Amino acid sequence: MDSSTKNWREQLYVMVFQTDTKAGRRFDGILLLIILASLVVVMLDSIDAVHQNYADLLAYIEWGFTVIFAIEYGLRLYCSPKPLRYAFSFYGLVDLLAIVPGVLALYYSDAQYLLIIRIIRMLRIFRVLKLSPYLKQANYLMSALRGSKQKIVVFLVSVCTLVTVFGTLMYVIEGPEHGFTSIPKGIYWAIVTLTTVGFGDIVPKTPLGQVVSSLVMITGYSIIAVPTGIFTAELANAMRGDTLQHPCPVCRKNSHEPDAAFCSRCGNALFKKLE
Amino acid sequence: MDSSTKNWREQLYVMVFQTDTKAGRRFDGILLLIILASLVVVMLDSIDAVHQNYADLLAYIEWGFTVIFAIEYGLRLYCSPKPLRYAFSFYGLVDLLAIVPGVLALYYSDAQYLLIIRIIRMLRIFRVLKLSPYLKQANYLMSALRGSKQKIVVFLVSVCTLVTVFGTLMYVIEGPEHGFTSIPKGIYWAIVTLTTVGFGDIVPKTPLGQVVSSLVMITGYSIIAVPTGIFTAELANAMRGDTLQHPCPVCRKNSHEPDAAFCSRCGNALFKKLE
Amino acid sequence: MDSSTKNWREQLYVMVFQTDTKAGRRFDGILLLIILASLVVVMLDSIDAVHQNYADLLAYIEWGFTVIFAIEYGLRLYCSPKPLRYAFSFYGLVDLLAIVPGVLALYYSDAQYLLIIRIIRMLRIFRVLKLSPYLKQANYLMSALRGSKQKIVVFLVSVCTLVTVFGTLMYVIEGPEHGFTSIPKGIYWAIVTLTTVGFGDIVPKTPLGQVVSSLVMITGYSIIAVPTGIFTAELANAMRGDTLQHPCPVCRKNSHEPDAAFCSRCGNALFKKLE
Amino acid sequence: MDSSTKNWREQLYVMVFQTDTKAGRRFDGILLLIILASLVVVMLDSIDAVHQNYADLLAYIEWGFTVIFAIEYGLRLYCSPKPLRYAFSFYGLVDLLAIVPGVLALYYSDAQYLLIIRIIRMLRIFRVLKLSPYLKQANYLMSALRGSKQKIVVFLVSVCTLVTVFGTLMYVIEGPEHGFTSIPKGIYWAIVTLTTVGFGDIVPKTPLGQVVSSLVMITGYSIIAVPTGIFTAELANAMRGDTLQHPCPVCRKNSHEPDAAFCSRCGNALFKKLE
Repeated sequence: MDSSTKNWREQLYVMVFQTDTKAGRRFDGILLLIILASLVVVMLDSIDAVHQNYADLLAYIEWGFTVIFAIEYGLRLYCSPKPLRYAFSFYGLVDLLAIVPGVLALYYSDAQYLLIIRIIRMLRIFRVLKLSPYLKQANYLMSALRGSKQKIVVFLVSVCTLVTVFGTLMYVIEGPEHGFTSIPKGIYWAIVTLTTVGFGDIVPKTPLGQVVSSLVMITGYSIIAVPTGIFTAELANAMRGDTLQHPCPVCRKNSHEPDAAFCSRCGNALFKKLE
Repeated sequence: MDSSTKNWREQLYVMVFQTDTKAGRRFDGILLLIILASLVVVMLDSIDAVHQNYADLLAYIEWGFTVIFAIEYGLRLYCSPKPLRYAFSFYGLVDLLAIVPGVLALYYSDAQYLLIIRIIRMLRIFRVLKLSPYLKQANYLMSALRGSKQKIVVFLVSVCTLVTVFGTLMYVIEGPEHGFTSIPKGIYWAIVTLTTVGFGDIVPKTPLGQVVSSLVMITGYSIIAVPTGIFTAELANAMRGDTLQHPCPVCRKNSHEPDAAFCSRCGNALFKKLE
Repeated sequence: MDSSTKNWREQLYVMVFQTDTKAGRRFDGILLLIILASLVVVMLDSIDAVHQNYADLLAYIEWGFTVIFAIEYGLRLYCSPKPLRYAFSFYGLVDLLAIVPGVLALYYSDAQYLLIIRIIRMLRIFRVLKLSPYLKQANYLMSALRGSKQKIVVFLVSVCTLVTVFGTLMYVIEGPEHGFTSIPKGIYWAIVTLTTVGFGDIVPKTPLGQVVSSLVMITGYSIIAVPTGIFTAELANAMRGDTLQHPCPVCRKNSHEPDAAFCSRCGNALFKKLE
Repeated sequence: MDSSTKNWREQLYVMVFQTDTKAGRRFDGILLLIILASLVVVMLDSIDAVHQNYADLLAYIEWGFTVIFAIEYGLRLYCSPKPLRYAFSFYGLVDLLAIVPGVLALYYSDAQYLLIIRIIRMLRIFRVLKLSPYLKQANYLMSALRGSKQKIVVFLVSVCTLVTVFGTLMYVIEGPEHGFTSIPKGIYWAIVTLTTVGFGDIVPKTPLGQVVSSLVMITGYSIIAVPTGIFTAELANAMRGDTLQHPCPVCRKNSHEPDAAFCSRCGNALFKKLE
């Protein structure tokens, strides 16, 4: 491999993988548009009226997109300094998944709906927008979610218990003649009601059933406060650094209340007052 | 009772009641799977198509589970150092409740739905997962709920008053010909609407009724902020939580780090040292 | 009026108006039960099946309640030291309103539904429960609501503007053949959708209408954050005193950051450190 | 132009553009009533029963309003010291937009619905009410929204990805025979469900579809916590808000009272005094 090829591969690498240069940004921009177009084609193809008239055309276009993504995948493998590492990275796998269903669709026609997985590639959009502030904000959100993980598990377990009990109760009260044909159906109804979605495909008809429903609804209406409260409190925590990290000059206590002026262990001033 | 029996009972106790040893964790894991399987069987049996074909099979399986739980209950009574205390503890009663409906179902076929009460036994899942962090988080949630108890009562009383007034109003406005056949039905509708569930089984038809409905909906949409606000503020309090409540003798600062000896605002000793 | 009558009036006053004595608490308890019973009778009377069989009985009972409330009102006027002030106070007017509809119902049969206004009398329940902690919590809620009044007005004006614009838009897009028979109907639909109630009595049928609906729904789903955020922030404010009120010994600046140790205007220590 | 004309124009300017004088407030008050009346007329005209009987009358009234607004627009242009600047200001454009549709409606009858745009003129209501506190509160809301912009984008992108994936999944599972006639329809359903609106026009019928629906609903019910948490945390920030951001040269405390001269934590001067 002579130096000019190497140089060309490096330039390609900069364009394909990075967004600092004008060429890199343009490459990512065009790629996003193609992904979007590919998604729109899958959606259009699912509409019956469109499918009957343009099935062949859309199939050809979809094939075109698959070829383009295959070439792009090849390019990325070719110009990446560590091809294997790219291939098994998150983005590498997603890029591969954008091609596979197109090939599978030759044998199983339902496989084409897997193409919708290409939407994950749209996450690259954050690379085109100015990336870092979004990443920082996403980090706040992630750390708030991590911090509230155990509280959320406790909450979800409680919700599952609630809907199972209420679903069974409604099945016993209302019975199959009012649409509650089985316990799982009752649980489905309890979820629909507790989350305040309320499709209305199954509704209580007996007075007792309506009393229990009212209970479920008010419960659902009230406990939505719980995940909100958890997340808000955690996010507020994540957004402000909560303690003052500064060693006390006398006793070396290192962590203090945010606005502490004196050490709470030894009572000495934390900061010297300049004369 | 010779020493080897005593030893065996102790080993059994460790396995059945504790989760520190490998055997204990495995015992709890298998137990959880059996409870889950038993719940699934109850649910399956409630589906008409399944019931008609496999009623006998499922009844036998359910009987098997009841026997297993009875044996387990006996084991717990046998190996517990204080059997009576266990029998009347929360878990003891729940374990008993897991057996009773299976026996009752011999005489009253509806009693089998009481088996769903076994879901409470699933709470043991927190013992298999690493328990303590979940307990701590559950404690935060409980203390936030306790702290907001009175605010929640004020809120629920207001909601009850609102739905009664709005329910009656809609009954008078819409009348029985539009589905509002009585005041309790009107109240049921008001709850469905205020909690933003909106089944759509009863809907206002007259213009005036739709104006009042709009009012109910906007009220419901806005006052959901109240429980959320209450709970969030309390949870934030509970999470900041572990503070020392003691007024500083000099500056009256009231809340300090849990192990503070000196006030972090004025540097004075919080507690007088007796000579 | 001799002294024994005066004494008797005073004892009556203590029993009827206060809740400190055992007799006073019992009086309020019985009163609440009667109010509740009276509400239940009004509700029962509105159910058609009950009305056809027991109309006369219920009418007599309702009359009995009206007589009881009239006597109670007379007693209150009689034993109150300042009868006029009571008569025009909030509770006095509510007590009067609990009697009037019963009398009106003689002439207009619909007037009996005004009896539901008696539910406001249920607010006395807070006098039977230990009053003061509830009042304090209600005060927090009220002061949070007062503090967020202007933000709430801004929010409600925005919501009104949104539903008017979206309602008109949907009327133009969907038209009368899909249930959007007029702009007010469109606005009603927009309120149903924006508040996430979703009755389903009117739903968009055209693709464009469904796109606009999706917009309305996501807007409604997102802006519910606004009143919640407003209320939570205000409540958190109301629950903690936000500034330190303490005159600086040197410059007399009176209001400081909650944890200030030094005056931010003159730099002197706010609190003397005791040696 | 002699001095009396100039004087007259100035007086007119004060009345039309300002709200400090009694005449100015009265002018704005009457204007708001006219705008409201004009909106009511547009709405009434859209009701079929009204339109058939009073179409001509309403058209004349609407014309009257258009003429009044045209005169008002002329007056504003005439008395404004800088007519062009007014014409291209936000309010100037809105005032023009209040006239144009009335004229357009002569040629295209649908154009009359554009009249609803006059609702934007209702924003002047904040000028009649005491303006400044509302503006300040609106500013808090705007700055909270600005601060949470990037988090909201991350959130909305996640929601879009979720509804696309779930919509496609439901299309594959349920198929056209249960109302999921295409992927866009599936996405519409996913939005209806995730936002907890739940119209009930399309509902899952297959067991698998109901399981996936339950997942969507619980997701929607839980992630409503995210925008709420974001907004609340930002609003609390904005309301604490007016702080001086400047690191103390000694203790690095970063946020101070707006007019602080000395650090409230360590008492040192925040800014060096130049000799």
